[in-house]
Amino acid sequence: MMHIGSLVAGPRGTIADVAGVTVGHCTLAQGAVQTGVTVIRPHDGDVYRDKVPAAACVINGFGKSVGLVQIDELGVIETPIALTNTFGVGTLANAQIRAAIAANPRIGREDPSVNPLVFECNDGYLNDMQALAIHEAHYTSALEACSVEFERGAVGAGRGMSCFELKGGMGSASRVVHIGGDAYTTGALVLANFGKLQQLIVEGEALGRKLQSSIDEKPEQGSIIMLIATDAPLDARQLRRLAMRAAAGLARTGSVFGHGSGDISLAFTTAYTVPHDADFIAMPPLINDARLDPLFQAAADATEQAILDALYSAETVAGRNGHRRISLKDALRTRP
Amino acid sequence: MMHIGSLVAGPRGTIADVAGVTVGHCTLAQGAVQTGVTVIRPHDGDVYRDKVPAAACVINGFGKSVGLVQIDELGVIETPIALTNTFGVGTLANAQIRAAIAANPRIGREDPSVNPLVFECNDGYLNDMQALAIHEAHYTSALEACSVEFERGAVGAGRGMSCFELKGGMGSASRVVHIGGDAYTTGALVLANFGKLQQLIVEGEALGRKLQSSIDEKPEQGSIIMLIATDAPLDARQLRRLAMRAAAGLARTGSVFGHGSGDISLAFTTAYTVPHDADFIAMPPLINDARLDPLFQAAADATEQAILDALYSAETVAGRNGHRRISLKDALRTRP
Amino acid sequence: MMHIGSLVAGPRGTIADVAGVTVGHCTLAQGAVQTGVTVIRPHDGDVYRDKVPAAACVINGFGKSVGLVQIDELGVIETPIALTNTFGVGTLANAQIRAAIAANPRIGREDPSVNPLVFECNDGYLNDMQALAIHEAHYTSALEACSVEFERGAVGAGRGMSCFELKGGMGSASRVVHIGGDAYTTGALVLANFGKLQQLIVEGEALGRKLQSSIDEKPEQGSIIMLIATDAPLDARQLRRLAMRAAAGLARTGSVFGHGSGDISLAFTTAYTVPHDADFIAMPPLINDARLDPLFQAAADATEQAILDALYSAETVAGRNGHRRISLKDALRTRP
Amino acid sequence: MMHIGSLVAGPRGTIADVAGVTVGHCTLAQGAVQTGVTVIRPHDGDVYRDKVPAAACVINGFGKSVGLVQIDELGVIETPIALTNTFGVGTLANAQIRAAIAANPRIGREDPSVNPLVFECNDGYLNDMQALAIHEAHYTSALEACSVEFERGAVGAGRGMSCFELKGGMGSASRVVHIGGDAYTTGALVLANFGKLQQLIVEGEALGRKLQSSIDEKPEQGSIIMLIATDAPLDARQLRRLAMRAAAGLARTGSVFGHGSGDISLAFTTAYTVPHDADFIAMPPLINDARLDPLFQAAADATEQAILDALYSAETVAGRNGHRRISLKDALRTRP
Repeated sequence: MMHIGSLVAGPRGTIADVAGVTVGHCTLAQGAVQTGVTVIRPHDGDVYRDKVPAAACVINGFGKSVGLVQIDELGVIETPIALTNTFGVGTLANAQIRAAIAANPRIGREDPSVNPLVFECNDGYLNDMQALAIHEAHYTSALEACSVEFERGAVGAGRGMSCFELKGGMGSASRVVHIGGDAYTTGALVLANFGKLQQLIVEGEALGRKLQSSIDEKPEQGSIIMLIATDAPLDARQLRRLAMRAAAGLARTGSVFGHGSGDISLAFTTAYTVPHDADFIAMPPLINDARLDPLFQAAADATEQAILDALYSAETVAGRNGHRRISLKDALRTRP
Repeated sequence: MMHIGSLVAGPRGTIADVAGVTVGHCTLAQGAVQTGVTVIRPHDGDVYRDKVPAAACVINGFGKSVGLVQIDELGVIETPIALTNTFGVGTLANAQIRAAIAANPRIGREDPSVNPLVFECNDGYLNDMQALAIHEAHYTSALEACSVEFERGAVGAGRGMSCFELKGGMGSASRVVHIGGDAYTTGALVLANFGKLQQLIVEGEALGRKLQSSIDEKPEQGSIIMLIATDAPLDARQLRRLAMRAAAGLARTGSVFGHGSGDISLAFTTAYTVPHDADFIAMPPLINDARLDPLFQAAADATEQAILDALYSAETVAGRNGHRRISLKDALRTRP
Repeated sequence: MMHIGSLVAGPRGTIADVAGVTVGHCTLAQGAVQTGVTVIRPHDGDVYRDKVPAAACVINGFGKSVGLVQIDELGVIETPIALTNTFGVGTLANAQIRAAIAANPRIGREDPSVNPLVFECNDGYLNDMQALAIHEAHYTSALEACSVEFERGAVGAGRGMSCFELKGGMGSASRVVHIGGDAYTTGALVLANFGKLQQLIVEGEALGRKLQSSIDEKPEQGSIIMLIATDAPLDARQLRRLAMRAAAGLARTGSVFGHGSGDISLAFTTAYTVPHDADFIAMPPLINDARLDPLFQAAADATEQAILDALYSAETVAGRNGHRRISLKDALRTRP
Repeated sequence: MMHIGSLVAGPRGTIADVAGVTVGHCTLAQGAVQTGVTVIRPHDGDVYRDKVPAAACVINGFGKSVGLVQIDELGVIETPIALTNTFGVGTLANAQIRAAIAANPRIGREDPSVNPLVFECNDGYLNDMQALAIHEAHYTSALEACSVEFERGAVGAGRGMSCFELKGGMGSASRVVHIGGDAYTTGALVLANFGKLQQLIVEGEALGRKLQSSIDEKPEQGSIIMLIATDAPLDARQLRRLAMRAAAGLARTGSVFGHGSGDISLAFTTAYTVPHDADFIAMPPLINDARLDPLFQAAADATEQAILDALYSAETVAGRNGHRRISLKDALRTRP
């Protein structure tokens, strides 16, 4: 696959290049059920006790993700991040609550509650969402599978997703930049499920229009979740700025943030944590905003690369009602 | 109970004075389980097909409510509004999805998904939240119980709630104002679960400090959900303005929007609906913003009145672990 | 004057109790021109070189203040804060630009531009705003007058302001709280120019309705600017939370955030600065959000107290077109 | 110049294809002073009396534009839109106030104040911003020059602007789409002053990297203002959605919304106005959000096209201190 931009990638070329970040999938692929769960752990400790600075950016809010209200207010996440289909959100929120209580029995009693964080896209074209096939155990499976090595494409939450009317799903990428003499790694992980074929741009080329001669008037019903991890020391305000740059990478693939597409990004840092029990938060020196441009470029480039990674990693999948999404590779092979 | 402000109330003195609005409860009160579900229907039709203009205002975002991202973007609600405890949110979201699919089998297939709307407060002082006692059937019960007549106090989602360290819960009030010669009714319904006793102000009197001589240093872990219904023709932008005025009513009872208190308001109008299937939205003439002050006063006064209504309607409740919340009436009776 | 709440005030009982903060006025009071400028310096250095962490909260956005867009993005202020009447904003922005260039000749050349910060209220009832009487020199005068000792009432930007249809203007107050064993001072300075007499609440008493028997239907055209200074170590996200609590203090005086009232608060901290030229920002340990409640109470109480201070400090003023605003003291003296 | 996307342009190919919209320039080009003013009139009436529905979107808030706070709250603009350099904002705000008072002598007296609306970019590379060369009369000149025919490139506010380290300035474009059988025209006008050469993408081609072999580490100090006009009937919430899509067009030219770049868009509709004096606002049927995708595509494509129009229309300009910005045409001619 082509390399986007002039920044270099990390050794793995995925979000796991950010030290401590791991990803796990649980994939359901049987007949009309083509869906799954993906979990991202920002560190291998207890995220409730050592909260992770984070901020989200709602680029287009046609989405049903949970957890964003509290992140906006407090600037931290306190559970691993879960991804799934639109109708699996409530169940995964319950799974996260149960897991948090198991590790911290004071939650909901002496301690306040825990804020579940579940993102979703609508995989209803391939997957029978009405089957409500996501169960709490799938969260546990995906959590236990978390590793620095993980598959991309039609796996986990990406199993049933469509992107530019081709097969979409999970994609990832990373970039390394230098600021003030230090190297920082920024990674992106996307759940790509948006776009009409005619919009697809690959590395600047209007590939979609070449793959499709006639225009299909059906509106998009997609979405994309874009997670940005970095080891750069930033606070929540700065992370929101970083999250916004995912929109630039997204746009370069052809998206105009369609009405029915819940386009949401979230950025978090592994540079420090916020302890649950402490009067004060020890802060590392933060990067001055005036030095953030390399990180902004990294977030945009890694997001664009991650979307292309999702397209190039995915295989053709058939699902409910005879629906079928061809992979980009297969589409290019049979290109008119 | 005292009447707040100089505006008159509607005939019922509740949110049901706004024509079409109904409220139903399902109450769970057995031993350590003291919790429940309350459902508010903005009209008696299918809210998915005839969406209701609405806007939310996050006054303090320490909260786990679901549905707000999409409301911010699209300015409508498309399910009845559900209230429950913090750990019941995922389950009620599932119940709303199932109910929407039952009525609209195209959802998640040809039609896009549905946006569940569930608000919560933390009733963990009286209720054993870890029991995860809320089931989907409780949503159906509360929905079927919806009526213009409904109880307030320690019922439904209010069963286990605490307010100013007294017994809190459900409260409601209404106000009628005239603009341009027409009368408009605005109603408030609150799930009141916030505040330290020393903060309580009742009609301007610092009653809390009279009821409690010593200061308790434990931080607040409460929340309040404030729903404002109106029959005035407003768009989503204007409804967000109206929702913000609930904060004024809340503050007048002594709240300073405590850190751990998820203080969220939502305003909706019954003056028109947004059809699910239509190229255009037929709009009534909207009230000019320059004429909104009476509605702002109504929203603030009704919210303050509704909070006092919750306090005065509640009975003393005992719950998990020997915890007990005395009603304001009982507290005043035994006042030192 | 009464003391609001149970927290103690600092020694001066003004925003100048926060070490380093000074305030200066330039008052114009001749015939139909009843207006002025007030400047608040967050520290006595060059605010462009040592930027001050800050965040604003727009409670009602009927306002023409300048500078908020960049504060939202970057979380700092880089000029002293200026207050004046609505039509003086552009001129004071120019004055701030000129002052910044004088101290930093690279601005607009090698260095990027400077972000002027000017807040305003509409003093058009007493003051002939169309005279555009504010000149750049008035900014310099007010800046040079900055001191820990400063007048309140009908002075500086407060000269022509009305509050609850009485004479309003400048007010200030402070509160000291303890968190984790350390004492923190929080001060409020308000430019109070809002409200209808019938709404006025003084320490819980509906005093306005006692001073006015009949209801005046004219809409409010006021505004209030509320500045919160603290020496507590907070970041911009937390300062936004603090700024929001000014709304609670405002509401307790009877405001419902009227349509025509630009109600805006800004909180800043003196605990650290952000250097203009540096790769990194050295951060002190920040107070954990879970410990912020005392500061929230302080911000709300100091704001309420500062509004009452403005009312009690003001003298009766006559201005353009025979208009006259009676001071609260005079109104109480002649109370029916 | 190439045509971006598959939608057709209007007859003029500028924002003036939206009926009623006119644009005028006042250009200052003498030695070190290379700057100017551009005014956009949304209709040829009095915008204060017939306010124009509008919404802004702050993509990156490193900017000093004035007027956005009130637009966010009220969803209308009430003056023509002015563009200029960063240090001209205060002066143009004064000019707008004076012009509004001249037409409406009640402003600031019986009527509330007027909300000036001035956007800016930093033209300090070519222009001696410290000269503060913008005077109020330049606003009047530009206003009087408003016409459906107007120049683009290095004119008006665009005179001194740089874009991708080439000569930037004013650009415009339009697109026509059909929704529910009706044709709607959407136009974009940009003040393009952002980007590093290495980032420039023209119609998908990484042209910047071809024009520049070595990487220049100096941070960007640019900005872009993007105005979107449409005759489609939308409310302020929907216009904010439209404004956000300008970010997609911007990103496709290579921008990642750099730290120092104030990237702000504003969308307005000519489909109806909001009368200053009226109890009610008569509303046309609004386009259902589910049908907005063609307008979103139009806004993104017109913005990208308008940026390229600015680059292709500009001529090479020399300014202060021997600085010089080569036009894209000249750069391509001498391309290595």
